[in-house]
Amino acid sequence: MTINHKQQPPVKVVIALGGNALQDKSAPATSEAQLAIVRRTSEYLAEISIRGYEIAIAHGNGPQVGQIALASEVASDVVPVMPFDVCDAMSQGYIGYHLQQGLRYALNLRNKNIPVISIVTQVIVEKNDPAFQNPTKPIGSFYTKEEAEQLRLEKGYTMVEDSGRGYRRVVPSPIPRRIVEIDSVKRLWDSTIVITVGGGGIPVIEREDGVLEGVAAVIDKDFAAEKLAEDVDADIFLILTEVEKVSLNFGKPNETTIDHMSVAEAATYIQEGHFAPGSMLPKVQAAIKFVRANPTKRAIITSLYHAVDALDGNTGTQITFSA
Amino acid sequence: MTINHKQQPPVKVVIALGGNALQDKSAPATSEAQLAIVRRTSEYLAEISIRGYEIAIAHGNGPQVGQIALASEVASDVVPVMPFDVCDAMSQGYIGYHLQQGLRYALNLRNKNIPVISIVTQVIVEKNDPAFQNPTKPIGSFYTKEEAEQLRLEKGYTMVEDSGRGYRRVVPSPIPRRIVEIDSVKRLWDSTIVITVGGGGIPVIEREDGVLEGVAAVIDKDFAAEKLAEDVDADIFLILTEVEKVSLNFGKPNETTIDHMSVAEAATYIQEGHFAPGSMLPKVQAAIKFVRANPTKRAIITSLYHAVDALDGNTGTQITFSA
Repeated sequence: MTINHKQQPPVKVVIALGGNALQDKSAPATSEAQLAIVRRTSEYLAEISIRGYEIAIAHGNGPQVGQIALASEVASDVVPVMPFDVCDAMSQGYIGYHLQQGLRYALNLRNKNIPVISIVTQVIVEKNDPAFQNPTKPIGSFYTKEEAEQLRLEKGYTMVEDSGRGYRRVVPSPIPRRIVEIDSVKRLWDSTIVITVGGGGIPVIEREDGVLEGVAAVIDKDFAAEKLAEDVDADIFLILTEVEKVSLNFGKPNETTIDHMSVAEAATYIQEGHFAPGSMLPKVQAAIKFVRANPTKRAIITSLYHAVDALDGNTGTQITFSA
Repeated sequence: MTINHKQQPPVKVVIALGGNALQDKSAPATSEAQLAIVRRTSEYLAEISIRGYEIAIAHGNGPQVGQIALASEVASDVVPVMPFDVCDAMSQGYIGYHLQQGLRYALNLRNKNIPVISIVTQVIVEKNDPAFQNPTKPIGSFYTKEEAEQLRLEKGYTMVEDSGRGYRRVVPSPIPRRIVEIDSVKRLWDSTIVITVGGGGIPVIEREDGVLEGVAAVIDKDFAAEKLAEDVDADIFLILTEVEKVSLNFGKPNETTIDHMSVAEAATYIQEGHFAPGSMLPKVQAAIKFVRANPTKRAIITSLYHAVDALDGNTGTQITFSA
């Protein structure tokens, strides 16, 4: 594999940042702790940028939007409760701010003076997406059975028992159909590092009269990042997570890591149940989708720390169309 | 005055939106109520845009950031308290999201398909700004004297008694020195309606090592909008508020409205105490600053409802360099 040389057009990379790039699960989820992690993350992202790759960044927001929604619920006697789409928008502000700050500094340290901006981003989902009939994504706080029943009656929430820890609201996880602000992302591409579709984007449906309407849902951030990668015609879709490579038989004695898989092989591994739903599964699915739509391009799943090596083709799990 | 004709370059307008463009003080400050007001506001903004003016939008965030900070404080037993700069970033996401949604729809209705995006925006303030020695801007909730004393000791907050309603935290209101994301605003200018410096921008200081550091402060949104107008070389700086025209002797029997004032006249009126601090005063000060920096250009103070007429020169208070 070759990296960017001056005589070639720059290699365009869409990066999907995992939750561990933003927060340390073992520490309290304070803003100060997040900023410290984001600063470290930014060092690795800046290294990618100074190697000449043109990047855009998508990121998750699970813990952050959960916190924001929870604070709003707990404070409901004092201030009006914010709907979930607004909490999503707030989390984009929160995380985007930290990433802008961290990345600008890390780039300046490396004498690269390129603007970094976060765009508040809406993503259109289909009203008829089957996910709306089957909400699966738990959000917000835990309730007793009685409180849950009351929320169901009063607000129409779907409440489910979550692993013996109490009842939680679940929301649908529909497929991203269109990134509303995509034109601006494209326009800024060659001059600016854009942070977009944070938390998978603020989910909105497009009514027949053209009005966009926020919905209580969570778009998978890997699927939203994949849509972004397709839309900007990225050369590489880089999915960053906690592990250097994807594994077969993860956590078992016969675990083996994957250096490379074709989309056909990846699909077979999914069939065989190798990848955990809500964890590695959506990443592999998103990688397959990107490569199927762009058979000459590749997706990579690796960790932040191995990203540069993986872009060079030296580590990570590389996903291409053919074996 | 002439409006934009095809053979002339487009007229560039920076709009500072007042609080009444985002919330109705007489209704509960719910997200749904805000969205309804923003949709109405967007109709007026779209009318400006379809007349050929190129616009960028700055807005306040006082009530919104107050709510966010308050919810965070009230929920402090359950989730970590967010620092004020992060609350600012969240409010930019919240308000920017609604404005994007409302404005996109209002423009589409008028067959104008122009992107609208909000950029999370940091504004650099000086560490040595005298405002840091004299915090004046109340934020967040009310406390008893004992609670206030405890916050002062524990967190170093400056707490002041507020109009007999209890003690509140006050933060400095420093002068905006530099809009960190200004390059992207400029780059997008001719293709996109950009919403930026929300709430005056997230106040940050630039440390000697180049790190930006959020501070608990509130930048006046009219001053931040003025900086924006200077930076993008706007032709008109349009400050929208609740009244059609600025008044002398406001609220008195001899009240008179002002159709036009030179910067010298405006300065005299300020000296004479005609304009209320925290209300009309910063707007007139910002207008003066813009016109002094750009003596061939003009500032306008008017209401949202009279904005189009005022841009045509037919109403509002017009502020120019000469009488």
